[in-house]
Amino acid sequence: MSAGETKPIRPAAGRQADCVIARCRELALCTDVPATITRTFLAPSMHRVHALVGEWMRAAGMNVSVDAAGNLRGLLAAADPRAPRLIIGSHLDTVANAGAFDGILGVILGVALAQTFAAETAGQQSPFAIEVIGFSEEEGVRFGKPFLGSLALIGQLDPATLALTDANGVSVASAIRDFGLDPAELPAAVIDPSAFAYLEFHIEQGPVLESEGHAIAVVDAIAGQTRMEFTFTGHANHAGTTPMGPLRHDALAAAAEWIVEVERYANACDGLVATVAKVDSSSRAGNVIAGRFVASLDVRHADNATRSAAVSYLADFAQACARSRGVSAACAISVDQPAVSMDTDLSRLLFLIASIAAANEVLPRFITSGAGHDAMVIARRVPSAMLFLRSPGGLSHHPNESVLAGDVAAAFTAGLSFLRTLRDDKTVLEGLLRNAILEHGKAAHA
Amino acid sequence: MSAGETKPIRPAAGRQADCVIARCRELALCTDVPATITRTFLAPSMHRVHALVGEWMRAAGMNVSVDAAGNLRGLLAAADPRAPRLIIGSHLDTVANAGAFDGILGVILGVALAQTFAAETAGQQSPFAIEVIGFSEEEGVRFGKPFLGSLALIGQLDPATLALTDANGVSVASAIRDFGLDPAELPAAVIDPSAFAYLEFHIEQGPVLESEGHAIAVVDAIAGQTRMEFTFTGHANHAGTTPMGPLRHDALAAAAEWIVEVERYANACDGLVATVAKVDSSSRAGNVIAGRFVASLDVRHADNATRSAAVSYLADFAQACARSRGVSAACAISVDQPAVSMDTDLSRLLFLIASIAAANEVLPRFITSGAGHDAMVIARRVPSAMLFLRSPGGLSHHPNESVLAGDVAAAFTAGLSFLRTLRDDKTVLEGLLRNAILEHGKAAHA
Repeated sequence: MSAGETKPIRPAAGRQADCVIARCRELALCTDVPATITRTFLAPSMHRVHALVGEWMRAAGMNVSVDAAGNLRGLLAAADPRAPRLIIGSHLDTVANAGAFDGILGVILGVALAQTFAAETAGQQSPFAIEVIGFSEEEGVRFGKPFLGSLALIGQLDPATLALTDANGVSVASAIRDFGLDPAELPAAVIDPSAFAYLEFHIEQGPVLESEGHAIAVVDAIAGQTRMEFTFTGHANHAGTTPMGPLRHDALAAAAEWIVEVERYANACDGLVATVAKVDSSSRAGNVIAGRFVASLDVRHADNATRSAAVSYLADFAQACARSRGVSAACAISVDQPAVSMDTDLSRLLFLIASIAAANEVLPRFITSGAGHDAMVIARRVPSAMLFLRSPGGLSHHPNESVLAGDVAAAFTAGLSFLRTLRDDKTVLEGLLRNAILEHGKAAHA
Repeated sequence: MSAGETKPIRPAAGRQADCVIARCRELALCTDVPATITRTFLAPSMHRVHALVGEWMRAAGMNVSVDAAGNLRGLLAAADPRAPRLIIGSHLDTVANAGAFDGILGVILGVALAQTFAAETAGQQSPFAIEVIGFSEEEGVRFGKPFLGSLALIGQLDPATLALTDANGVSVASAIRDFGLDPAELPAAVIDPSAFAYLEFHIEQGPVLESEGHAIAVVDAIAGQTRMEFTFTGHANHAGTTPMGPLRHDALAAAAEWIVEVERYANACDGLVATVAKVDSSSRAGNVIAGRFVASLDVRHADNATRSAAVSYLADFAQACARSRGVSAACAISVDQPAVSMDTDLSRLLFLIASIAAANEVLPRFITSGAGHDAMVIARRVPSAMLFLRSPGGLSHHPNESVLAGDVAAAFTAGLSFLRTLRDDKTVLEGLLRNAILEHGKAAHA
């Protein structure tokens, strides 16, 4: 290898992957519920997370701060203070009884990338700064509303959200103050105007990559989702003395016919997922016909029109199932969230670089995320891309959630290749900067 | 009207119906849970029931006793102590938060019939005695096993049953002693060997008579019933990140297809009722696919082979619904109770007499009972027949349970006509006695 040539990444990637996984396991010990991993918005355990990750950030050469929303931010400055900023982030919080990788993996991978990049770029001029952000809240556990951390970055942690209260009556604003922060300083948390791209590494939380033998995937879009509750109301009669037919008004039977159609419709519609999962029958005994049956419906697709058509069809079908049994059906929407496309140019670039970096390994694929992520929020201001890592067993939100070291190495390799390309290929960085200005312009006029 | 002719029943029937309904309402005040009607096996409120009904029995000329199972028994003796005995009975206990007529109506109607019959037969010789029995327990609420009262009459309140305990750890035997009775005297509770017929009046507890405009019906059989629990086991995955198809193992979707088939099969099979009513999804959130789904199945039919075929087919179908989704299905039977035919000769006689007594009114019909009754138990020893009264709104096991005064009058008319026929037509009574000996013979050799 001649001097000046870029060093191969792979051997270092293996060591970095082991370090990233070890750090995630160490952070898993920061919990508010012993013997589980449970870390909600600015709960006491978050202080220890900030201390540990902050220390690793400083070791990587970053300036560390915590913004007024409790986001931990590490800045690897460029020599030129006017240099544009690449943001790498994910979240520090967890669901109750969580695994060790959902969210935190993306933050720790970001720190590892920044550290490696800083070390190998020492003495050169990086044409961009890197900010690694550990968002304080994404899961929505404590206040019933997700994305509190990333909303602060786009200036939308608004007074209504600050007034939300948790199960103990503590508001978001109070929780911020209790942690030693000042909600009045939230404006300073807004994303730097020079930010030109946002990258998020995250576990897939699903079985697709594993089933197809892929280590990593680039996300093309985060599916829109509609969540509803359907209530079928019939009559609670004696199961033995009420004959079949017109004298029987079985709310559960009506719902069952509808649930079968939910599954059939989704099976027939490419990319659609539709699920009935949480149900409640008013019948508490096998010999009493269900007078009322309540069922959740969760519908997701990358295309909003496809999702809306599905919701509308399935709501009509519920009416038909009810009507034919002298039952009534009503539905209420609790979540109706449009799909968010990742930035096409940025995602294609990431895919291309990841494909080249994969060398003789299995190539990445594109995938639609069925779950929401901080990238959904940040994408409203900055071109965003996500890279998924395979989830063994498709497991997430579970203590057995894991990642394969080889997959973390593949993600690290793709990430470092991406940083090197931006550093070394002026036309690529300039393209992303133009793209960002166009996107910012669109957002400003939206 | 010439002397010696039988008086018309109808005007008296109306007054008797009003009295019967008023007495049921008065007994509804005997409860162990204030503001509801809740009266389980030998609970404190049962003392007051025995006192009131015992008083009405004595006023009807009956000798009153309480047997060792807590059954209240009133005997209207015939002049000849060897005269055969007709038994009229139903139960005194209720479910929790019950209505005022389920069970007790049959007892009070029996007392009214005995009183009227005794009054108009005074001076004549009745060729049979009448024993009215208020069974202590039919609903199975306190000890989880129904028919404790009637089982004592056929000598089957056995040691295993006496050892059953209620929610407070009190055994059936202790409950009997606590009420002031002695389990050692249970053998004396067994039905008198001279009993030749058992009659039970009961509300329909279903919507059929009301829907067809009938006041009363004669029961041809009590349907056999199989009660099962089906457990579908799949995988609890993320509803958004798990695509439709082979990577998804949705226990609820498998169950829904099966529930639709349960309903379709029952609709297509004359007289069959099959109901899925009590269910539990392991999913507590709309975005988590149900990994486990448990569902009750209740199947009833007057023909045992038809019921068995249905159960077998539906168990197989559950397997098929599960298999096609990579889900497993298991089932367990909790109740498997054969159908019990009412005595054909006795039921036809009752139907014929009720039809003649209906005069210009709507004729009775035959009906299969979908619910269990004391007559199921007594039929093992004595030829038994039941007469159902229309249930307004099909309601039972509900505070709003009711009866129409005209329907009670119709039942009273049919019952009194039956007693008069047995008194006045020697060939009819002799036919029933021969029938009873045949039945007893069969039972003795079974």
